[in-house]
Amino acid sequence: MGQDGMTRRKVLLGTGTLAAGAALTHVSGLVSTASATGGSLEKWPWPYKKLDPEKTAEIAYNEWYRVFCGAAVISSVFGQLRQLIGEPYNSFPIDAFVYLEGGQVGWGTICGAPAGANVVANMIIGPRIDSSTIGHQISTDIMQWYSQTELPVYKPKTPKVKDNLPTTTSNSPLCHISVGRWMKAANKPLGSPERKDRCARVTASTAYRLVELLNKWKEGGYESNTDFNCGKEYGITGQFNCNDCHGNNVPQAPQEAPPKA
Amino acid sequence: MGQDGMTRRKVLLGTGTLAAGAALTHVSGLVSTASATGGSLEKWPWPYKKLDPEKTAEIAYNEWYRVFCGAAVISSVFGQLRQLIGEPYNSFPIDAFVYLEGGQVGWGTICGAPAGANVVANMIIGPRIDSSTIGHQISTDIMQWYSQTELPVYKPKTPKVKDNLPTTTSNSPLCHISVGRWMKAANKPLGSPERKDRCARVTASTAYRLVELLNKWKEGGYESNTDFNCGKEYGITGQFNCNDCHGNNVPQAPQEAPPKA
Repeated sequence: MGQDGMTRRKVLLGTGTLAAGAALTHVSGLVSTASATGGSLEKWPWPYKKLDPEKTAEIAYNEWYRVFCGAAVISSVFGQLRQLIGEPYNSFPIDAFVYLEGGQVGWGTICGAPAGANVVANMIIGPRIDSSTIGHQISTDIMQWYSQTELPVYKPKTPKVKDNLPTTTSNSPLCHISVGRWMKAANKPLGSPERKDRCARVTASTAYRLVELLNKWKEGGYESNTDFNCGKEYGITGQFNCNDCHGNNVPQAPQEAPPKA
Repeated sequence: MGQDGMTRRKVLLGTGTLAAGAALTHVSGLVSTASATGGSLEKWPWPYKKLDPEKTAEIAYNEWYRVFCGAAVISSVFGQLRQLIGEPYNSFPIDAFVYLEGGQVGWGTICGAPAGANVVANMIIGPRIDSSTIGHQISTDIMQWYSQTELPVYKPKTPKVKDNLPTTTSNSPLCHISVGRWMKAANKPLGSPERKDRCARVTASTAYRLVELLNKWKEGGYESNTDFNCGKEYGITGQFNCNDCHGNNVPQAPQEAPPKA
């Protein structure tokens, strides 16, 4: 997270205790009614066996060149679990998630690597309308880790591009910003082999991190790494770094009414 | 799309013919190798029967109050297809997509309504590594329609909030921007019943539009409504409206090398 974002966060928190204290039902509430028509894959958690993060990352790296970022993360985890466990992983349509590429069909929204990790965590652990919120928490961990880490971390064993690639911190989970910051630092265009290999390595890095978190959950030792909740802190869904798009002119969201005494 | 975005688009296109002409493998290329380990749901297209858009929208509206935007769109389509067809819809874990709420676990990235529509279109039609690109194209149509339409369009039969709600054009598929613009116009906070009902109606509107497109595809009469490809036009993944975040200071992406003569 950039210093600007931190400063802004402190400023907003300092003047916005009402917003910070107000419960945000949409984001933090739990719905208790389970689906009446749930299918066979709607029983959670799905069976999971601990995976090797390094092996998973290597699979994800290579799968990027077949199905791009989002489906590559899903394939790296579910492909192994198809071999180790079978169902429900055999039945899950991994390849259909190719569209997560480029921030969903090239529109630059959420990077496919965290988007694919979110699919994996929430399919395995299940929605927070059921008993556990850990799928939700792992997703928030992945989003924060992705935004604050100098990526790519992972170096493939047999890289398709031999050069050392620059690393950048995106300060955002958005493809457009993550790729844009890296392209600027590397001075490489979108269609270059270096940009593609960077994205394959970011995909691998994210798969590595995801499996670390899933393994901790399987061991019973998972604890969330973040309590960031933009809705509670700022009164709107969002990420840390307001200034990235808003500069110093961050608008304030309409405020929740103070709780009645 | 705002006038500013259009102007910027023309400006960039006027000075960037190389970028516009350069093929972007990541976004426009097709990968031909099918998965070797594909499961039973990886045979496309999935069977589909034409649905009533209005009935679908009404289901989506009510499902929002159970599973929020993304899972509500998926449930509105797949729930009906469970009844009409059965598999593979019975096996698909609809409720696990609750995490699409609030732009994915509240982080304000892609709105769950188009994100859920993208799941539906690409699960049914399949990835563009197989024979068809129509799932991809329907997703781009949904993203553009969502960004350029005064939403919500759909009025539920028995709305939970009786008032006429303001409508706004997001100029973006991002939850943070879409919700933020509406909250500003309505002067209602995130936790208000009005904001929640607005999001339920946007979800319903998106499900309506999605089913219109799927029905056209089923009839054999689907034609894409957009040829927008940010990678080809601007040299980076993204959306129309550069100025929304960049103001008048839009950076230029590193350029692709010109094709050899």
